[in-house]
Amino acid sequence: MENKFMQRAIELARSNITNLKGGPFGAVIVKDHKIIGEGCNEVVSNNDPTAHAEIVAIRNACKNLNSFQLDDCEIYTSCEPCPMCLGAIYWARPKKIYFAATREDAEQANFDDSFIYKEVSLPIGQRKIPTVQLMKVESKAVFTEWNALNLRIDY
Amino acid sequence: MENKFMQRAIELARSNITNLKGGPFGAVIVKDHKIIGEGCNEVVSNNDPTAHAEIVAIRNACKNLNSFQLDDCEIYTSCEPCPMCLGAIYWARPKKIYFAATREDAEQANFDDSFIYKEVSLPIGQRKIPTVQLMKVESKAVFTEWNALNLRIDY
Repeated sequence: MENKFMQRAIELARSNITNLKGGPFGAVIVKDHKIIGEGCNEVVSNNDPTAHAEIVAIRNACKNLNSFQLDDCEIYTSCEPCPMCLGAIYWARPKKIYFAATREDAEQANFDDSFIYKEVSLPIGQRKIPTVQLMKVESKAVFTEWNALNLRIDY
Repeated sequence: MENKFMQRAIELARSNITNLKGGPFGAVIVKDHKIIGEGCNEVVSNNDPTAHAEIVAIRNACKNLNSFQLDDCEIYTSCEPCPMCLGAIYWARPKKIYFAATREDAEQANFDDSFIYKEVSLPIGQRKIPTVQLMKVESKAVFTEWNALNLRIDY
C-alpha cells in the first residue's frame, strides 16, 4: 500500500522529465487509504519559487478537504522535503511523512536543499542572505492586539 | 526608506486584526525602491497552511516580474520568517531580508515558529512527525534521468 502511493509520487516526479514544469519532484497526500491531493514541481511553468511538489500537493489536498489542516493524513514525497516544504508540512500537521530520495541525491542534481538546511540552522548573522532587524517595538504591538482578540482563529 | 517599507508590512499584519484572513503577519517585496509585491497571512480565509505573508508576497512579486527569481529584490516582513518562509526566500533569492518581530514574539502569540525551527534542525528520526524512507533506488533513478536532460531549466 505504502509503495503504491510512493510509486505515484515518483511517477509525478518523472512526469517533469517530459513536461518540464519544474524540477523532478512529486508528492501525494493520502487519507483513509485514498489519495486526496497531488502535486508535481511547477516552479518554472508557474514562475513560482514556492511551487514545490509538497506545497502544491498540500494546497490541493486542503482545498479538497476545505480545511487548513491535514488531520490524519500522510504525505508521500519522491524526495526528502526541503526546509520550506518541511515547514509547510509542520504547519499542515499530517500524521506521517514518507520520502524516497534524500537531500544529498537532490544536491547531486544541482538543487539547493542541503545548502538551505545548513542556512536555516545558522544564527541570523551568519547566513548568506544579509538579514537586518527593524521596528521590533511597532511590530510586537500587533501581537499584543492579536493576543487580546476574542474572534481570532488559531492555527 | 527602510522604515517606510517595514511600516507597510506592519500595516498589512495589522489588517488581519480586523479582516481575520489569518495570523497577524505582513510582508512586502521591494525592487529599485518600489514595492512590487505584497502579502498578508491568508491561512484561514484560503484554507491554505502555506499562505503565510512572505509566501503570498513572493508569489505576488514573481507574478508581477514574470520570473521565478527575485533578483536584486529585498523582502520586508513584520516578523522573522518561519522555516517554511525562510526556505521560500532562499529559493527566490532576494538580496536582503528585513524583519521586525522575532520567532519568540510569535511564540508568545501561540504560533509554532520556534518549535518548527527546532524540528527542522533535528535528525529525521528524532522529529515529532514520524518519517519513513521508502523506494530510494526507484526515486534516485529519476534524478539520473534529470541529470542527463539537456532541456532542463535549473533554479
